[in-house]
Amino acid sequence: MNISVTMLKRLIKEKSMSTLNPVSQHDCRVTSSFWNHYIDLIGKKVLPYQWKLLNDEVPDAEPSGCIRNFRIAAGLEKGEFYGAVFQDSDLAKWLDAVGHYLAMHEDKELEALADSAIELVGKAQQSDGYLDTYFIISNQDLRWKNLRDCHELYCAGHFIEAAVSYFNATGKRKLLDIAIRLADLICSVFGDGEGQIPGYPGHEEIEFALIKLSEVTGNDKYLDQAWYFILKRGSKPNYFEEESRRPGFREVFPEIGRLAGTYSQSHEQIYDQTEAVGHAVRAMYFYTAAARLAGKNSDRELMAAVERLWENTTGKKMYVTGGIGSTSIGESFSSAYDLPNDSAYCETCASIGLMRFSEEMFLTHPDSRFGDVIERALYNTVLSGISFDGERFFYVNPLMTVPSIDKGNPIFSHVRTVRQRWFGVACCPPNIARTLPDITTYAYAADGKNLYIQLYVSGSVRVSDEAAFSVETDYPSNGNIKVTVCGSPSWDFMLHVRIPSWCDFIKATVNGNEIEPRIADGYLSFTGLHDKDEIEVQSSMEPFLVFANPRVAADAGSAAVQYGPFVYCAEEADNGPELAALSIRSDAAFSKAAAEGIPERFTCLSAEAEKDIWDSDDLYSTHEYGKEKKELKLVPYCTWNNRGEGEMRVWLRRME
Amino acid sequence: MNISVTMLKRLIKEKSMSTLNPVSQHDCRVTSSFWNHYIDLIGKKVLPYQWKLLNDEVPDAEPSGCIRNFRIAAGLEKGEFYGAVFQDSDLAKWLDAVGHYLAMHEDKELEALADSAIELVGKAQQSDGYLDTYFIISNQDLRWKNLRDCHELYCAGHFIEAAVSYFNATGKRKLLDIAIRLADLICSVFGDGEGQIPGYPGHEEIEFALIKLSEVTGNDKYLDQAWYFILKRGSKPNYFEEESRRPGFREVFPEIGRLAGTYSQSHEQIYDQTEAVGHAVRAMYFYTAAARLAGKNSDRELMAAVERLWENTTGKKMYVTGGIGSTSIGESFSSAYDLPNDSAYCETCASIGLMRFSEEMFLTHPDSRFGDVIERALYNTVLSGISFDGERFFYVNPLMTVPSIDKGNPIFSHVRTVRQRWFGVACCPPNIARTLPDITTYAYAADGKNLYIQLYVSGSVRVSDEAAFSVETDYPSNGNIKVTVCGSPSWDFMLHVRIPSWCDFIKATVNGNEIEPRIADGYLSFTGLHDKDEIEVQSSMEPFLVFANPRVAADAGSAAVQYGPFVYCAEEADNGPELAALSIRSDAAFSKAAAEGIPERFTCLSAEAEKDIWDSDDLYSTHEYGKEKKELKLVPYCTWNNRGEGEMRVWLRRME
Repeated sequence: MNISVTMLKRLIKEKSMSTLNPVSQHDCRVTSSFWNHYIDLIGKKVLPYQWKLLNDEVPDAEPSGCIRNFRIAAGLEKGEFYGAVFQDSDLAKWLDAVGHYLAMHEDKELEALADSAIELVGKAQQSDGYLDTYFIISNQDLRWKNLRDCHELYCAGHFIEAAVSYFNATGKRKLLDIAIRLADLICSVFGDGEGQIPGYPGHEEIEFALIKLSEVTGNDKYLDQAWYFILKRGSKPNYFEEESRRPGFREVFPEIGRLAGTYSQSHEQIYDQTEAVGHAVRAMYFYTAAARLAGKNSDRELMAAVERLWENTTGKKMYVTGGIGSTSIGESFSSAYDLPNDSAYCETCASIGLMRFSEEMFLTHPDSRFGDVIERALYNTVLSGISFDGERFFYVNPLMTVPSIDKGNPIFSHVRTVRQRWFGVACCPPNIARTLPDITTYAYAADGKNLYIQLYVSGSVRVSDEAAFSVETDYPSNGNIKVTVCGSPSWDFMLHVRIPSWCDFIKATVNGNEIEPRIADGYLSFTGLHDKDEIEVQSSMEPFLVFANPRVAADAGSAAVQYGPFVYCAEEADNGPELAALSIRSDAAFSKAAAEGIPERFTCLSAEAEKDIWDSDDLYSTHEYGKEKKELKLVPYCTWNNRGEGEMRVWLRRME
Repeated sequence: MNISVTMLKRLIKEKSMSTLNPVSQHDCRVTSSFWNHYIDLIGKKVLPYQWKLLNDEVPDAEPSGCIRNFRIAAGLEKGEFYGAVFQDSDLAKWLDAVGHYLAMHEDKELEALADSAIELVGKAQQSDGYLDTYFIISNQDLRWKNLRDCHELYCAGHFIEAAVSYFNATGKRKLLDIAIRLADLICSVFGDGEGQIPGYPGHEEIEFALIKLSEVTGNDKYLDQAWYFILKRGSKPNYFEEESRRPGFREVFPEIGRLAGTYSQSHEQIYDQTEAVGHAVRAMYFYTAAARLAGKNSDRELMAAVERLWENTTGKKMYVTGGIGSTSIGESFSSAYDLPNDSAYCETCASIGLMRFSEEMFLTHPDSRFGDVIERALYNTVLSGISFDGERFFYVNPLMTVPSIDKGNPIFSHVRTVRQRWFGVACCPPNIARTLPDITTYAYAADGKNLYIQLYVSGSVRVSDEAAFSVETDYPSNGNIKVTVCGSPSWDFMLHVRIPSWCDFIKATVNGNEIEPRIADGYLSFTGLHDKDEIEVQSSMEPFLVFANPRVAADAGSAAVQYGPFVYCAEEADNGPELAALSIRSDAAFSKAAAEGIPERFTCLSAEAEKDIWDSDDLYSTHEYGKEKKELKLVPYCTWNNRGEGEMRVWLRRME
C-alpha cells in the first residue's frame, strides 16, 4: 500500500481527550547508535564536565559559583552570593539531567556526585522549607518580594522536577523530601487566603513541576497549586505591577519592568490569550503546564486556548529549524511572520520548551502535527545547542551567520559565532543535558489500549506486564522502522506509528505482507497484534526543498533543504565564504556526500548550484553578475560550527 | 560625440590640490521648479512651522522647550531646563536655515523672527561669552567637565555656523558678534597651555564652524583652534577616559561610555584612521573639517587619511540610497558590507554629513565620484527626510519596512513607519531646513579660472564681475542641461559639467555644433568661451538596475531600480502588501507611469514583475510557489510614505 501522505487532511476533530502518558524511562531501552551517542556523551562527558563548571573548576569558562553559593548558604563556607538571581537552577537542572541519565544507565560515580550535591542542597534548605541561596545568603528579608524578577519559584520548580527525576531513577527520597518541604511552603505562602501572597512566578516553571510532584506523590494539593498559578496569571490588577509599587521593592531587572506584562504572559488570563508573546521560554513553560492541566481536567476552554497558542507559535512564529523567539530584546516572540535569520534568538531552551509543549498537546490530542514539531525542534535547534565534543554550547541559534557582520554590528551582539563553554546565564547547557537522555519520554506514549511511537528510536518499550515492543530502525539515516511484538497485547490494543511529515509515500507490512492499515491523525494504526508479529513501515526519505509563506519576507526567493528530520545548512567550511552569492536550482538533484569533519551518523548532501561572480571591488554596479556552476555541500543544521568559525546559511537563494 | 562613460577610468591622480570654493549663495539664482518647490517649502512653511515647534506651539508634536530654555537662561522667565543636553542646537540650526533661505529670498517676517531669536540668544550669553542654556540654567559648575556627553562644543559650532550664514545673508553682525565672543572663549579655554583644557568635542561640529568663522572674519586663530581639535582627537591618553575618571564627573549618556573610543572617532588620531567607525554623523562632521583643513594646508598625509575614510565610507558602508550608519546601536557604522535594509539606521543628518564631506573632498580634488555621492545622498536619503507637506520628518531611513514587523520586534524600535512631526532629539528636521535652501553651495564651485557645475539646477551663477552663466535644465526629469555664457570669461577659463554616474552616453554641443570636449575626472570641460555661447549637454537618462557586491548578503539575488539620480522603491500603496513576494525581471522593460498621490515633478515607473502565489495559510510548504504576472509600480525612494503607512522595499528580488 502506498499512501500519498500529503493528501491526508488531518484536522483535530471534536473528540474526547486522551489519557495518554509518556512511557516511563524504566520501561524503555535505547539501542539506537545515534541516540546512545548523545546519551553517552551526556552521561560520560557533559554531566561530569558540567559538575566541574558548577564547581568553578574549568579555567577558561565563565565562572558559575553555583555549588559555592550552596556551600555558603549551608554555612560551610563564608562569602557572598555569586552570579545571577537564578543561579541555583543550574544545579537543579544538572540533578534533573543526572536523574534522566541514571534512569537509562547505571553510573555509581555520577550518582555519588549527585548524592553529595543533594546532601548539600539539604543543608542549605531552611527549616521552613525555603530554598534559594540568593535570598538565604544575604537577602532573607526580600523573600518572595519581587516575583517578577527574582526567579525563586522558577528555581523551586527546577528542584522539584529534579527531585521527581531522581526519585524515579534511583528510588532515593532525599531530594524528593526536600522538594516536598519546599512545595509545601509554596502551597502555604501563595494563594488568595488571608496572609497569603496572591502572586505567581515571574518565570513560569513551578507549575509543571507541581503537576509532576502531585503525580509522583499522589497529593492533589500540588495540582491545585499549579492550577492556582496558571489561572491567577493575568488577572487584574496585575500582580507584578502591584508588587513593584510596594515600598521597598528592589528591582533586579529594570528591562523586565520596561517590557511589561506581555513579556511574562501576565497581560491577560490564559483563557483570553490568542497570541504567543513575550519571553519564549517563559511562554513555552506556561503553555506546557496549562496544556497538561487542560488534559487532566478535560477543560475544553483551556484546551482551546493552548491550542490557539500552539497554532500561533508553530503556524506564525516558528523557524524551519524549530527555533522560536525572533527577537533578542527580551529573548521574545515578535510579530507573526517576523522570522529574521540573522538576528534570530531561537534560544535552545525555547525549543526544548516547544518540545515539551508539543508533547503535552499530543498527549491530550494525539495528532502527528505535534510529533512533527517535536522532531523539528529536537533534530535541529536542540541538537545544534551542543558541540560534537559535548564541551561547548549554543544559547542562541541563528539561521544565518556572517561572522564579520555579527561581530561588527551590535544588533547581533547576542549571536555567538562559535559555541561557548558556559554562559553567565547558563540555562541552556543543563537543559540539553536533561533533555537528551529523556528521549524515550518523547518517543513513546501509551495508555492501557494504545502505544504511540512518536519518534523512531531503536530499542524497546514495555507497555504492560503482558506486552512489549522492540523497535529497529536506522533513523535518522533512513525512514524505515520495524516493530516486533513481544508478548500478547489485548485483542483491541493498538499500535500507532507516526507518519513523518516529510515523507511522501509510506509502505506498511505485517509479517512481510503489505497491508492497508488504518490511518488517523497522521498515524498508521495496527491492531490485532500477536507475539512476534513484525510490523514494518518504510517511509520514503528523499532530500527536498522547503518554501516559506511569502509573508515571511526574510525567506522570500529562498528555499531550505530538508532530508528526513534534518534541516540542512551551507557552511563556509565546505563552500567558501559569501554564501549569499550561492543559489540552488529549484529542481536540484541531491546526492549524498561526505563532509570533512562531520561524523558518518549525519548524512551530508551535495546539490547543483550557481555562484554569482563579481569581478570588481565596487560596492554597486549596473553590470549583471556573472554566474559559475558550483557544487553546493550541505550539512545538517545541528552540526554547524563544529569545524571552526565561518559563515552559515539555512535559507538558500533559489534559481527560479 | 557619444562617449561611453563606463569606459572612462577616473582615478584620482597625484596632483596639486585645487583651490576651489563653493560659489557664494549671493552669486547664484535658482529658477528650477523642482528646487524652488523645496526652497519655498522651507521658507514659507517649514521654518515658520519649526519656529512654532521651538516655541512649543504645536500641540501634537513632541515638546521642544528650546526657546523657553533661552528665556530662562536670559532671566526672562523662571523654570527648569527642558530637553536633551543639546537642545540649543535646534535653534542654532534653525537660524542657520533662515540664513541660507534669506540669502536666496527676502522675507521680512522670517527675518524679524530670527532677529528676535538672536536678541534672545544675546541675552542668554554669559559675560565671558559662554553660551549653553543647559549649563547656564542650573549646571554652571559643570561647564566643559563632560565633553564626551554634553555637546557644549557641538552647540557652539552650530551657533557659529548660523552666525556665518546669517551674516552672509543679511550683513547683520549681532549673531556673528555673539559667535565671535563664544569662539574667543573656546580658543582661550581649549589647548595645551597652562590652565587650558586639552580636550575636544564629544560630537564633532565646532571644527568646521571655526574654519568658516576664520574665513568670514579673516582671523586665523579660529583656524588654529580647528586644527587643534582635529589633531588632538585620538591622542593618548584618551581625553574622554581621563575626563570620566575625574572626581565629580557626571555621566549623562552611560551608553556613550560603554561604546568607547570608536563611537566618537577618538580611538586613534586621524592620520592613523583607515575605517569609518562610530556614530555616523559625528564621523562625517569630523572628516568634513579634516578634509577642509587638508586642502587649506595641502597636507597630503591628512588628505590621504580622509580619502581612505571617504573610500571606506562610500565603497564599503553606504546604502544605494546614500544612507550611512547600518546600526541603530550608537547610530553607527558597522562592518564593511553590513547593509541590512530593515534595521538600517541611515540617519538623515548622516547623509547631510556625507554630502558635506564629499563636497570638501571635491573642492580639494575635483572628481565626479564625489559629486555622484552628493547627488545620491541628496536626492534619496536627504529628500526622504521631509514629507511633501513639510510638516513631518524621518530621522531614520530604512530601505525596507513591513510595519507589522517593525512594530512587533523591538530591534526595529528605531524605525518609524510614518514620518514624525518632531523628535525628542530633533537634529534632522532643522538640518534638512538648512541644507535644501543651500543647494547652490553643492551645485557650483569655482576659482578664478574654473567653474564646476556639480548638480544640474536651473538658474544662474556669477563667477566674476566679467562672467556669469545661466543654466537651463529640467533635471531631474531628464538629463539635459544648457549653459549660456553671459559676459566674457578669460580666454583660459574652463567650464566643467559633471557627467552623472548613471548615464551611459552623453552628447555635447556648443552653439549647436557637436564637439568633442575634454573629459577629465568625470567632467566635460569647455574652454574658449564667449558671450552668449550656448553649451548643451545631453545625458541619456534611462531606468536601470543596480546590483550590489555579493558580499552584501542583504541584497543578494536582488536589484534596485535607479532612474537619473533617484533610487526607486515599491510601496504597498501601489502594489499591495507582501512586497517580498514580488520579483522583477532582469531584463524588465520600464515605462513611465503615474502613481496616485505622487506629484508630477517625480517620475514614477512601472515594470514587469511576478508575484509568488501561495494558496494556503501554512507557514512552510514543500510546494513550489505559483507565479502570476504583475505590473510593478515604482516611486522615487524619497517620496515614500507620503500616502499612508505601508510596506516599502528598495531592493527587489529579481528573476534570474
